[in-house]
Amino acid sequence: MNLYSGKMNRLVEELSSLPGIGYKSAGRLADYLIRQNEERVKSLTDAITDARQNVRFCSICYTLTDSETCPICADTARDHTTIMVVEDTRDLAAYEKTGKYNGVYHVLQGAISPMMGIGPSDIKLKELIERLEKEDIKEVIIATNSSLEGETTAMYISKLIKPTGIKVSRIASGVPVGGDLENIDEITLLRALEGRIEL
Amino acid sequence: MNLYSGKMNRLVEELSSLPGIGYKSAGRLADYLIRQNEERVKSLTDAITDARQNVRFCSICYTLTDSETCPICADTARDHTTIMVVEDTRDLAAYEKTGKYNGVYHVLQGAISPMMGIGPSDIKLKELIERLEKEDIKEVIIATNSSLEGETTAMYISKLIKPTGIKVSRIASGVPVGGDLENIDEITLLRALEGRIEL
Repeated sequence: MNLYSGKMNRLVEELSSLPGIGYKSAGRLADYLIRQNEERVKSLTDAITDARQNVRFCSICYTLTDSETCPICADTARDHTTIMVVEDTRDLAAYEKTGKYNGVYHVLQGAISPMMGIGPSDIKLKELIERLEKEDIKEVIIATNSSLEGETTAMYISKLIKPTGIKVSRIASGVPVGGDLENIDEITLLRALEGRIEL
Repeated sequence: MNLYSGKMNRLVEELSSLPGIGYKSAGRLADYLIRQNEERVKSLTDAITDARQNVRFCSICYTLTDSETCPICADTARDHTTIMVVEDTRDLAAYEKTGKYNGVYHVLQGAISPMMGIGPSDIKLKELIERLEKEDIKEVIIATNSSLEGETTAMYISKLIKPTGIKVSRIASGVPVGGDLENIDEITLLRALEGRIEL
């Protein structure tokens, strides 16, 4: 499409090629950006360039960070014997937001998906097993998503770890807090039933 | 929030300050951006900087463009006696997408909104009146949004233009094509009824 002209059009095209940004949102964003002052725009483009050039995987947990070791892995106040396994850095961020988890993480950078041709060797699974061999780990909490891929990955990891004798757990599935039963899908309802806790 | 580390965090903060991008989408975007190759990222940041520095208002219709006169105003094949008045360049783009409008535009760069303290002098209204005086205009089609602000602006403009004898029209409001009546709000339904056309 070429509904805007010249440089404006190029910006809209660039923005709309980003994930989750449609043509209309790209138009809105472009309109916003060209109205900001130069420093604001420079601050954004610098942040993009800077992150692109400097962000890499933590050498221990494989989350995205700009130092050799991420702040969580470097934090001696945290419990380094408990590893929560997540699919990506956003999931780590979601648990960090709770402020209640004091262990460390392992970021798989993906999930096993036979449909998408992503196998166990395409995610940071070998690296997890190496950590379990090297470090003194008491529990691995699998917090992959509650999707088909997440469940497949969780199952695969638990089978891999169980023989080592290290405790493996999976975060609970069920009705979200504040969730109205009538709006919840059947699979979740069944999961909530299966996972019921005696009071 | 500081759920990501260092430069990644800065990028997420920058992105989430953009309109319509929440903290989660910003995380997803940042994750995507740092995985792209350098050229891809440079192409995006260049487009932003370039548009910010070069995009300005067309000297005739006030749409966003990077030349003194936008391609539509410069196009002699278009009907320069019909002006469609829109609130912003995105609305112009929406009508251009239909490919059926052959007139020119006038972009108000806003709408009258007493609630937000935006008066007639804050939008490109004086500039529209000047065009009507200078150019040979046969019809002004008011295509501001169907919101309170858009309707207020349409009414204001029509009152301003009517004494000049130039034909003023307003695009129709009604049930969107393919719209299911039960999902349409009452005001739209009443508008559709009022605007009914004899068959």
